[in-house]
Amino acid sequence: MSSREADTNTVYVDGVGMTRFRGSTEDTLADLMGTAADRALDDSTSEGRDVESIHVGNMAAEGFNGRSGLQNLLAPKLGLTGVFADRVENTSASGASAFLRGVDAVASGRSDSALVVGVEKMSDAETDEATGIIGSIVHQREHNHGLTLPSFGGLVASEYQRRYEPEGDGIGAVAVKNHENGAKNPYAHFQNPVSLETVQDSRPIADPLRLYDISPMSDGSAAVLLTSTPRDGAVRVAGSASAVGTHAIADRSDPLEIESVEIAGTSAFEQAGIDHEDVDVLSLHDAFTILEVVELEGLGFYEPGDAWRATVEGETAIQGELPVNPGGGLKARGHPLGATGLAQIIEIVWQLRGEASGRQVADASVGMTLNVAGFGNNAITTVLTEVNADA
Amino acid sequence: MSSREADTNTVYVDGVGMTRFRGSTEDTLADLMGTAADRALDDSTSEGRDVESIHVGNMAAEGFNGRSGLQNLLAPKLGLTGVFADRVENTSASGASAFLRGVDAVASGRSDSALVVGVEKMSDAETDEATGIIGSIVHQREHNHGLTLPSFGGLVASEYQRRYEPEGDGIGAVAVKNHENGAKNPYAHFQNPVSLETVQDSRPIADPLRLYDISPMSDGSAAVLLTSTPRDGAVRVAGSASAVGTHAIADRSDPLEIESVEIAGTSAFEQAGIDHEDVDVLSLHDAFTILEVVELEGLGFYEPGDAWRATVEGETAIQGELPVNPGGGLKARGHPLGATGLAQIIEIVWQLRGEASGRQVADASVGMTLNVAGFGNNAITTVLTEVNADA
Repeated sequence: MSSREADTNTVYVDGVGMTRFRGSTEDTLADLMGTAADRALDDSTSEGRDVESIHVGNMAAEGFNGRSGLQNLLAPKLGLTGVFADRVENTSASGASAFLRGVDAVASGRSDSALVVGVEKMSDAETDEATGIIGSIVHQREHNHGLTLPSFGGLVASEYQRRYEPEGDGIGAVAVKNHENGAKNPYAHFQNPVSLETVQDSRPIADPLRLYDISPMSDGSAAVLLTSTPRDGAVRVAGSASAVGTHAIADRSDPLEIESVEIAGTSAFEQAGIDHEDVDVLSLHDAFTILEVVELEGLGFYEPGDAWRATVEGETAIQGELPVNPGGGLKARGHPLGATGLAQIIEIVWQLRGEASGRQVADASVGMTLNVAGFGNNAITTVLTEVNADA
Repeated sequence: MSSREADTNTVYVDGVGMTRFRGSTEDTLADLMGTAADRALDDSTSEGRDVESIHVGNMAAEGFNGRSGLQNLLAPKLGLTGVFADRVENTSASGASAFLRGVDAVASGRSDSALVVGVEKMSDAETDEATGIIGSIVHQREHNHGLTLPSFGGLVASEYQRRYEPEGDGIGAVAVKNHENGAKNPYAHFQNPVSLETVQDSRPIADPLRLYDISPMSDGSAAVLLTSTPRDGAVRVAGSASAVGTHAIADRSDPLEIESVEIAGTSAFEQAGIDHEDVDVLSLHDAFTILEVVELEGLGFYEPGDAWRATVEGETAIQGELPVNPGGGLKARGHPLGATGLAQIIEIVWQLRGEASGRQVADASVGMTLNVAGFGNNAITTVLTEVNADA
C-alpha cells in the first residue's frame, strides 16, 4: 500500500444521510437509495445537485432482489443522467469499499462531487435463501463442509473463552452496550436495551454465541457526499485503506488474529499520521459480538485478551475512554450489508460535528471506522477528522 | 464530468493478458482469473509481483456461480494477501468500469501498481437461468412487460431499417466482418468466418435480428496491470469516462440515439485532447450487430444513417479507414460479461504495440474503446495512446 501522493486532492465529507434501518420495508431498492441520497444532498452545501459521480455500495441485489446495475437505476431517479456511475461490491464491506472508490474519484480529480450510496434490501429473500446468499462469502472449500459465518463466529468465541477466560459473559457485554447505544439512535433497527441475562438466555446459534450475539438482517440505505472543497463543519478523510486477508479460515495461523484488520488498521493510521491515543470514537464491525472484541485487539487499541475486560468495565461505552459503536453498531443499528460501511462513517461524522444528540461522545475530533468483508476476507478502514483538528 | 487535474498521476498500461473465451470450460472462476492475471503480470515489467491493489470486474458471480467477493478469492491465490482489493459491477460494462476504478487508484496515488481482472463464467447457469440474470439489467417497469435486451435490439434494428433503408443487410455485414476478424484471433470464442447468407438464414431471435446478429454467452477472463511509471512500449490512458443514460428505453426520445454513448464519447475525447480523425482503431460494444452501427454514429464517427454503408463498403475492416473490432468484437471474440471491457482494451493495447499478429491495423497509435451497460444504461469509454504518439 503506497501512501497517497501529496499533490492529489484532499477529500472531505460534505453531507450525510440515511434511512432508518428496519427488518423489512415496503420501499423498493430505488426508494431506499433515493431517500438516503436526498438526505445527504440536503445535508450538504451542494447547489443544484452538482454531483459528478455516483458510487453504489451493494453486496447482492442480484441474489436478494433479482436486480443489477443499481447505479444506473439511481442516477436517473435523482435527475442525474449523464454522470459517471459504478457499483462496488466487497461482500459485507461493500459500503466502505464504495466510500473508498468515491474517495479515489475525488482525489484523482475525476469528480469534484462524488455521491456514495450504500444499500441492501435483504427482506425480499426468504430466510434460507438469504442464508445461502450470505454463505457465498465463505471460501468454497469450507462452504462445501457446511461452514457458515456464524459457525466461524462460534469457533473464534470458543477459542477466545478457552484462552482468556473472560469473567461472566465478557463477550455478551458487547451486545448489552450496543443495544443501549442503539436505543438512543433514531435510525437504529433495534432501539431497545437488553440485559446480559436476555443475551445469555437467548437461543444458541453457534456455541457459545447466542441470538443476541449476532447482528440482524436489515433493509436500509446510507449516503455520503464527498467533495474536494472544505466547508464549515466539514469532515476530512484523513486515511482510508483496504487489505485482503486469508480467505479460508483454516489457513490462518491463529483464529483470533485477523490479518486484514491489522494491515488495514496500520495503513489508515499511517496515512492519517495519527496514533491510537488520538482516536476519540470508533465504529467497529460487530456482526458478531466476538468480532468487536478481537477487532479492538487486532487494531492495537487493547492487548490480546484485554478488550473483553475493557468492555465489561465500561471503557468502550459512550462515556468511557474509548467509545465504540455509539450508534449501536451492526448489532443494534442493523446490518443491511451494502449500507453498513456508510452508516458506520455517518455515525462518526455526526459525532465529529457534535450532532449525535442523546449519544454524543464528548470532544470528539478524530474518529475511525472498520468495515469487514466476511470473516476478515477483507478489511476497510477510514480515519475521519475535524477539518481544524490538530491531529 | 470534471476534467482530470493536471497534478495527479498519469496512468499507463504495463501488462495485459487474457484466457481464450469459450462456450464453457472446466476451469473455475479462480482458475480463469488466475490465468489472466498471471499472463498480464508476465507481460509487464512488474518485478516480484509488486501489485498494490486488485480490482475485479464481474457482473453476476452471485447469480451464475453462487459466489461473491471474488477479489478476496483472487488475492490470496496470487500470493497477494494484504493488498487493497474491491470488485466493480456495471452489468455488461463491469470490465471497463473496473478498469476506470484502477485508473483512479493509480491517478490518486493510492496504488502504484493496480491489477484489474475481469471475469465471467456464464456456463455454470442453465440457459433460462442465465437469461433471467441478464434480464436483471432491464428496468423493472419494462422487465415486467417481458422486455429483454434482445427485444430492444430488435426494436432498434427495426427502426433503423425503416428510417435509413440499408441496402441488402447492412446490419448483418457487422457480423460478417467481426467473424472474419475473430478467425484471426487465437483468443476468440468463434474463430470461423461466416457468410452474409449464413447470418440471414440463421434463426430469428428478435425481428429483424437473427442468431448471428447476437453475441454468445461465454466463459473467460482478461487482465490489465496499470502503473504510474511508463516503460518502453507502454500505452497511456489518455482519457476515460462513464456516463449514465436513461434506464427505461421508453423514456428515450429517439431509440437510435444512446445518450450515454454520446456523453461518454465526448468526455473521453476532451480528456485525451483528441478528435475523431486522430483515432486509428476502435473496440465497440457489438452485443448486437445493430449496436456497432448506432455506436459509430452516436460517437460521431459517421452521420446518422451512414455507418451501415461504411461497414458494407469495408471502411471498418482491418484494412479500412477506421478499423472497428479487429479482435472480433463481442460477436466473435465472445462476451463473458465482466471480462469484455478489458478484452476490448487489451485488443487496442496489442494493436498500439504492433503485436496483433494476423489482424494488425497499420500504423495504429491512438485507439478507443466503448463498453456499454445493458442497452445504454451506462457507457464507458477509454482513449489509449502510444506513449510517444503525437496525439
